[in-house]
Amino acid sequence: MTKPLGFEKPLGMRDILPESLAKQRHLERELRACIEPWGYQEIITPSLEYYDTVGIASVTLTDRMFRLLDKQGHTVVLRPDMTSPIARVVSSLYKDVPFPIRLFYQSNVFRAQEKEAGRNAEFFQTGIELIGDASVDADAEAIALAVFCLQAAGVETFRIAIGHVDFVEGLLEEIVQDEEERSQFRRFLYERDFVGFRQLADQLAISQEEKRRLHALLTLRGGKGKIEEARELTGNGKARRAVETVYSLWEALEAYGVTEALLLDFNLISNMDYYTGVVFEGYAADLGSPLLGGGRYDRLLEQFGRPAPATGFAIKMDRLLQVAPSLEQPQSRPVHLYYTDDNRGKALAAAQQMRQEGRIVVTKRVRDRVEADLELAEDVVLFL
Amino acid sequence: MTKPLGFEKPLGMRDILPESLAKQRHLERELRACIEPWGYQEIITPSLEYYDTVGIASVTLTDRMFRLLDKQGHTVVLRPDMTSPIARVVSSLYKDVPFPIRLFYQSNVFRAQEKEAGRNAEFFQTGIELIGDASVDADAEAIALAVFCLQAAGVETFRIAIGHVDFVEGLLEEIVQDEEERSQFRRFLYERDFVGFRQLADQLAISQEEKRRLHALLTLRGGKGKIEEARELTGNGKARRAVETVYSLWEALEAYGVTEALLLDFNLISNMDYYTGVVFEGYAADLGSPLLGGGRYDRLLEQFGRPAPATGFAIKMDRLLQVAPSLEQPQSRPVHLYYTDDNRGKALAAAQQMRQEGRIVVTKRVRDRVEADLELAEDVVLFL
Repeated sequence: MTKPLGFEKPLGMRDILPESLAKQRHLERELRACIEPWGYQEIITPSLEYYDTVGIASVTLTDRMFRLLDKQGHTVVLRPDMTSPIARVVSSLYKDVPFPIRLFYQSNVFRAQEKEAGRNAEFFQTGIELIGDASVDADAEAIALAVFCLQAAGVETFRIAIGHVDFVEGLLEEIVQDEEERSQFRRFLYERDFVGFRQLADQLAISQEEKRRLHALLTLRGGKGKIEEARELTGNGKARRAVETVYSLWEALEAYGVTEALLLDFNLISNMDYYTGVVFEGYAADLGSPLLGGGRYDRLLEQFGRPAPATGFAIKMDRLLQVAPSLEQPQSRPVHLYYTDDNRGKALAAAQQMRQEGRIVVTKRVRDRVEADLELAEDVVLFL
Repeated sequence: MTKPLGFEKPLGMRDILPESLAKQRHLERELRACIEPWGYQEIITPSLEYYDTVGIASVTLTDRMFRLLDKQGHTVVLRPDMTSPIARVVSSLYKDVPFPIRLFYQSNVFRAQEKEAGRNAEFFQTGIELIGDASVDADAEAIALAVFCLQAAGVETFRIAIGHVDFVEGLLEEIVQDEEERSQFRRFLYERDFVGFRQLADQLAISQEEKRRLHALLTLRGGKGKIEEARELTGNGKARRAVETVYSLWEALEAYGVTEALLLDFNLISNMDYYTGVVFEGYAADLGSPLLGGGRYDRLLEQFGRPAPATGFAIKMDRLLQVAPSLEQPQSRPVHLYYTDDNRGKALAAAQQMRQEGRIVVTKRVRDRVEADLELAEDVVLFL
């Protein structure tokens, strides 16, 4: 025998073994059963896309994409998310399908990983896209469905935080003249670095009142009452319109009866280059990073030549697996059925009968009782 | 607006739209429900593997693999099949799990495509691997399970052809001295070119009796009676032992009660560099290519340092989709529920109630009855 092959896998790639996969499949079934009744239809797009089409349009930053070279020398990407491929489909194969279009996916997506990070480069998401509806009702539908999904997955304690990119942007435009400084503020918010945000606010050559408004932005996180506080912070421009949108959204979400699971967060901005309106993130107790992210992206579809408003969300399966309860019946234990040649037909028929009754049955032919005894398992049936 | 992005996908890549995906998901569920009760557990391996590990060990020919270059300059492959990744897992993460190991997968795999072929480069398979059992009972289990799977998928008319690579190889070794000539014979069989096979047999400097035996090989396709014919063609060597294995196998398959769906085919060889014993292929009426392939591969595991006999099969989803019956209830039609602001809470609660009762419900807020009338669908509920 020559030297064995190695077991190495490319950076960040991993095997998912039966024990944890059983739970993932269970959660995928629960999420599917929650999403389909809302009229969303499942779609699959290719694992590999050209960087110049789907890659460029993706919310994922270029240097986080899993880029490769194909034999013809084209730069290809393992799909970084499902939203931009779906935008491609809606603008091409689906170009004659009238809006609104509701699609969902249960798919793997890919991110490049640094050597030290030890994070997964391939991971699974379940998500929805609601395309061609600019109304606040569409935002509400996406958020309500997100709540129902996390409930269906059995997540006990979670909150979905809701913001609007125009609130932060509008407020900054009202107060901070310099685009470079606004960009610094955005970065602090994106990184949740409130200390840095406050320090920068204190350094600026602006009035005490304006400083107070910037500081107050950081406190706009809570229940419905925060809407009135947000209103008082702004004039009549972009930020004020954002507050009114959030107000209408909250009313719609009250009609869905899901506001107990919600939290307003007016300083939530997600990826502001991509999102264009309401944004939201789902957090579970004891989990530092969001397990769900979504929002309105009204500028993506036009990049593929079919301008349309859109919203959607994706649930990160790895994080959901951490907070969803264990399977009640993890893997039902197999029955081991031993038989000798003489009883083969009878034994195999009995095995098949038990399988149809819902048991897991593993069969094994043995010479005699002695051989069977040697490996006698607990759940055992003998045909000897 | 700048020039829209293109819609191009890498060669052989495709989107799977909801209409055909619904049928695929249905079939995957049926196959899973058939396989799990036999004690097989599902596994996922990475989409991307190093060519130098899994690629080299794969049954897939190197120039049919989807090879790419990663940023570090390594040659990586999109997994060409699931068998060699599973062999890697069984030899590493599973190295302490005792044999036999039963695993299954429902996964996409990849093949490089030529520009002209227009074939899919990414396609879906459901398959099983039974590792660590050299007995003919393991071969029988794999073949019986293959029969039950195709039945569960609703394929009406199919046959699974069974051969043994040692029968062809042994017979050729008994009759043809020159390895180069044996290799030509193998190629004719692999390509099902019986005319070429006969012409080559007639040209050789061998006795009339030996020519008769080569010609007779091509007729060894049929029911149980072909075992006796095969016996008569061979001496006491490798080919004869293969016949006796097939005889024992057939007896085991009679015990499973599946022989009506089977066909002996002593000139079936599949990929002889890879398979080491019993091989089988599933054919459906009106389908030129096999929709299922499998066999014994006792030399693969040792390449990863944990020598073990193994058998398994894979079902090609694209071909199964062609021969499986259409879904009885393709996609249940959604109910369209229109509501005005005044009735929103009542309407959304009613929608959720209907969803829990198994209906698909799409909701839309309208200003008034006039707007609802404009887009009145057939299945409609009004809360106005």
